[in-house]
Amino acid sequence: MRRPESPLAAAAADILVRARLRHPRVHCITNAVAQAYTANMLLALGAVPSMTIAAEEIGGFVAGADALLVNLGTFDSQRREAVETALEIAGDERVPWLLDPVFIDRSELRAAFAKTLLAREPLAIRLNRAEFAAIAGNEADEGALKRFALEQLMVVGLTGEIDVVSDGARQVSVANGHALMARVTAMGCAGAAINAAFLAVEDDAWLATIASLAVLGVAGEIAAAKSDGPGSFAINILDAFHALDRATLIERARIA
Amino acid sequence: MRRPESPLAAAAADILVRARLRHPRVHCITNAVAQAYTANMLLALGAVPSMTIAAEEIGGFVAGADALLVNLGTFDSQRREAVETALEIAGDERVPWLLDPVFIDRSELRAAFAKTLLAREPLAIRLNRAEFAAIAGNEADEGALKRFALEQLMVVGLTGEIDVVSDGARQVSVANGHALMARVTAMGCAGAAINAAFLAVEDDAWLATIASLAVLGVAGEIAAAKSDGPGSFAINILDAFHALDRATLIERARIA
Amino acid sequence: MRRPESPLAAAAADILVRARLRHPRVHCITNAVAQAYTANMLLALGAVPSMTIAAEEIGGFVAGADALLVNLGTFDSQRREAVETALEIAGDERVPWLLDPVFIDRSELRAAFAKTLLAREPLAIRLNRAEFAAIAGNEADEGALKRFALEQLMVVGLTGEIDVVSDGARQVSVANGHALMARVTAMGCAGAAINAAFLAVEDDAWLATIASLAVLGVAGEIAAAKSDGPGSFAINILDAFHALDRATLIERARIA
Repeated sequence: MRRPESPLAAAAADILVRARLRHPRVHCITNAVAQAYTANMLLALGAVPSMTIAAEEIGGFVAGADALLVNLGTFDSQRREAVETALEIAGDERVPWLLDPVFIDRSELRAAFAKTLLAREPLAIRLNRAEFAAIAGNEADEGALKRFALEQLMVVGLTGEIDVVSDGARQVSVANGHALMARVTAMGCAGAAINAAFLAVEDDAWLATIASLAVLGVAGEIAAAKSDGPGSFAINILDAFHALDRATLIERARIA
Repeated sequence: MRRPESPLAAAAADILVRARLRHPRVHCITNAVAQAYTANMLLALGAVPSMTIAAEEIGGFVAGADALLVNLGTFDSQRREAVETALEIAGDERVPWLLDPVFIDRSELRAAFAKTLLAREPLAIRLNRAEFAAIAGNEADEGALKRFALEQLMVVGLTGEIDVVSDGARQVSVANGHALMARVTAMGCAGAAINAAFLAVEDDAWLATIASLAVLGVAGEIAAAKSDGPGSFAINILDAFHALDRATLIERARIA
Repeated sequence: MRRPESPLAAAAADILVRARLRHPRVHCITNAVAQAYTANMLLALGAVPSMTIAAEEIGGFVAGADALLVNLGTFDSQRREAVETALEIAGDERVPWLLDPVFIDRSELRAAFAKTLLAREPLAIRLNRAEFAAIAGNEADEGALKRFALEQLMVVGLTGEIDVVSDGARQVSVANGHALMARVTAMGCAGAAINAAFLAVEDDAWLATIASLAVLGVAGEIAAAKSDGPGSFAINILDAFHALDRATLIERARIA
């Protein structure tokens, strides 16, 4: 017997279709390790990535973008300056943006910088349990997620074996994905970039965040079934994401 | 009935064979997103890539190179300084070089810098229609291409669904390639690097530019036929380029 | 008739198994071209890579690492400063580290810097014949390798068609690998990162270095047998390394 169609899975499919049609421009301030893979994931969606972090010209790129990703990996003074300029422009031009505070649990400096960025009104934040503890000051249980989302007025996308997405009022889990996703560098960074692209085509940041986790999780499951290890998996998930259709997504999404 | 062998396709095949035999050293000043894929494309040809942009040592690398690529993506002060030093040495040592003015239509600063570089006598420039308009000041019709090539005394390789290559006197189109080439980051940057490698083994920059577009276009068609999406395509085109033989290239090249 | 089991091959297999179980944290100061591929190779092993080169925070990452890789590719002032800070912390915290002096034969500045790093007590150095000549001042014959290892009190891993590993007292060759390994960028850099990861789980740096060369050489042979060129090879070796089992490694390792 087929499961009844979930309204959230259907919403995720709508967001995917809209993103493919609209080719959103997504500017990414991201770490050097993740740049190429992130660009390829965005191109697989039909989005238009740009990646410059030069202070002199980043303003123009952000002003022309439909969404902005700020990833704190490879955290140096050049990127910090780029973030400041980019967020100023994003605020002026009302460009939706998402924060990915990579490895803030390994660097107090990053954690402190990430905290200052919360005041710049990201629509969403993506992080794992260790990173959540570093920025929120306590463990990522259900109550803490909700409080943090309410205090900061943003969507929290907590990644892990099962992802949890909260906006303070609404909270669901996304149980898609595969263990090989943790064996490919930049997979989480690329997922956050897709999340940013979805913010460009969906005003409800909670739905956009759920959609990005479900879509890549399902693509990961499909890719894993035909992969011999992490090398082929990293390639196959790009293909699976590019080919993913509405019916397959709705059939396989596990949002609850 | 087989088409008669095109002299330009045969010339392209000769250039490919020469490049494989001579292992040219190609120094690339290119953006962070494109570095690894560009290096892999050059290695698939048997060329020897180097990529440093440190001002202190770039001179030595350029002096020892057989060709130089200047790509303006990820445009920051470090790369701008590297370009200045590299072009000084390239001028002194008569190292042929190619300009790839990425995204100058999105950044006035890049466009202005690109214009100053035209005076440094690149043998060829590779750009799409939007980038051509940003540097030449008008649309890329046949007359404008010709005038720009004549004024600047260089070869113009205009990329698009059909590529056009002009040196002011001679103008041909190259109708190879596949839509997936636009879904892989750094594909154009890597193509420009192959173009630079071909400048190292072919004095006629017009032929070298045609050859690079035809060779990668044909490799792209072969790769697309066995790919499931942009992920596998990015890998398969490296294999197809590495394996491409003279007969297949001549058979499939669409230069007119 | 099966060859008798080599004790060195068995030791290499033990090191591989230990590294997979312990998930060592490996901090890599490496060039921009190599960062993503290096991270993916470490992840295929189950290691935890980190890659920041920001002076402000690299100390914390190195202090928390189980091993450190210093690769001199893309050699700029930022990376030089990062190396200084990283080695100070590595010395204080007794983090084992490995030097990969990429392309020092092409840059006197790099060669001079590499020589100063020898005094900072790397456990091992990985380099090819041209790089050996640039740092040791003479050709890489058997006597020169031995003298250099003894003088510097470190393990020398000389890479080439046949690799040689010497600690001054003991010297063996590793005859695994495939020609396609030279057609993929960052393959040597990624191999050096695996060598660093093995230093985290094996006190005998000579054994750790042999193991890294044998393991990736065998993975390369397995990958080459199913690859159509350098593109698929770069992916397949990640899969083969991830899947390599003890029996296959011992059967195929050619350490003598």
